[in-house]
Amino acid sequence: MAKTAAIIVIGNEILSGKTRDENSVFLAHELRNLGVDVRKISVIPDDLQSIATEVRDSSSTHDYVFTTGGVGPTHDDLTMHGIARAFGSRVRRNPELETALRGYYPPELVEPNLLMADVPEDAKLISRPGMWFPVVVEKNVYIFPGVPEILQRKFTNIREIFRDDPYHLVEVFLRADEGQIARILHHVLDQFPDLQLGSYPYFTKPEYSIKLTLESKDTTYLNSAHTLLLDELLRADLHPVQPVA
Amino acid sequence: MAKTAAIIVIGNEILSGKTRDENSVFLAHELRNLGVDVRKISVIPDDLQSIATEVRDSSSTHDYVFTTGGVGPTHDDLTMHGIARAFGSRVRRNPELETALRGYYPPELVEPNLLMADVPEDAKLISRPGMWFPVVVEKNVYIFPGVPEILQRKFTNIREIFRDDPYHLVEVFLRADEGQIARILHHVLDQFPDLQLGSYPYFTKPEYSIKLTLESKDTTYLNSAHTLLLDELLRADLHPVQPVA
Repeated sequence: MAKTAAIIVIGNEILSGKTRDENSVFLAHELRNLGVDVRKISVIPDDLQSIATEVRDSSSTHDYVFTTGGVGPTHDDLTMHGIARAFGSRVRRNPELETALRGYYPPELVEPNLLMADVPEDAKLISRPGMWFPVVVEKNVYIFPGVPEILQRKFTNIREIFRDDPYHLVEVFLRADEGQIARILHHVLDQFPDLQLGSYPYFTKPEYSIKLTLESKDTTYLNSAHTLLLDELLRADLHPVQPVA
Repeated sequence: MAKTAAIIVIGNEILSGKTRDENSVFLAHELRNLGVDVRKISVIPDDLQSIATEVRDSSSTHDYVFTTGGVGPTHDDLTMHGIARAFGSRVRRNPELETALRGYYPPELVEPNLLMADVPEDAKLISRPGMWFPVVVEKNVYIFPGVPEILQRKFTNIREIFRDDPYHLVEVFLRADEGQIARILHHVLDQFPDLQLGSYPYFTKPEYSIKLTLESKDTTYLNSAHTLLLDELLRADLHPVQPVA
């Protein structure tokens, strides 16, 4: 069984349509490539109870949870307190993080500069060479900032932690209507119930109007399903096309 | 009080990082411009029980729910059945939708072409000039397809249903560190607790390093909060800058 993950994007600016969420797109793509099955993405407001509820629910139903956003020093940065509340934990100043912040800021730093050292008291820290501030982890929840450049750098630094058997993907492109192939797809799934099979219509591409995606971690299983699908399509006089790259 | 909305994006292709979700971005932006407060965006898999649970929870806690995806004729199109299950309703073939489909497809259509006429039995239909297929609505759940061009056309056709008093927005740009302004923001919120106030750090812009967003439906309230904020910033010797457009 693949490990499962939930991604929680914390930020009013996404919900109000002012900022486009880049982080869930990046994480979903990366995790898939690592062989992890992302089962849910949630975008929630900068609200303590919303964060606590979503984190608690996601943590109990997924192997990994990734949060993005809400870790700065201002009033709308409630992620650490929300995660602590999710687990009945307390927020405490972490000495290792305080040292990192004091090294980063000039000596005349103001007290709020240290707020990023306040994390759930039983949180773990993951450090890697080249990271001046560690990744904070509470239970199975990996806590990332909302700034995409920083999130991407930090995740890339620690991603090998999550690597699992890869997914294999085969795509089939058709000029057809989805109604024409619905029964064929059902039949393939009857024979290969563990196949991840997607069917996507396109209305603006000249070369094809359906993309089928077949995925599995088991290449033998995937190839057998692919062979059956092609057989059934040809029997229905439907011939896959090669899209222009 | 603003009306609230949840957006539910249904589709394995988003969770597996193969397709970028354009629909929640479009809907969040549109709804905000209409004066509607989007409180949650969820991306969930093509799975009957996941759809039913998410729709039921979102419907009971928001004024409007918008779903995208999963409305075609293939095995992974489970939205109508998921929504019916959410409300203990049954899926039935709708005669008006069947007529629309028979008008769209050539006479030699196959039975699965008609599957898009199968909707929750108490669903309502919203038709507008220029739409060959109506928008299906079950309770407070507005059901849209996943293809962005079609979703956008349909939503634009019916958006006036949702129009409410607009939000007003003021932005303030600063060259500063968030730690420096944390107390000022707290103080403004103490005086204006209903202000929607966001603080966003930027690490790659030459002109500014913080964007503050102030929002309210009440312009007098917004302007008073804005004036107080500017006063407090100037007193701390922090001078707003004008970003290059």
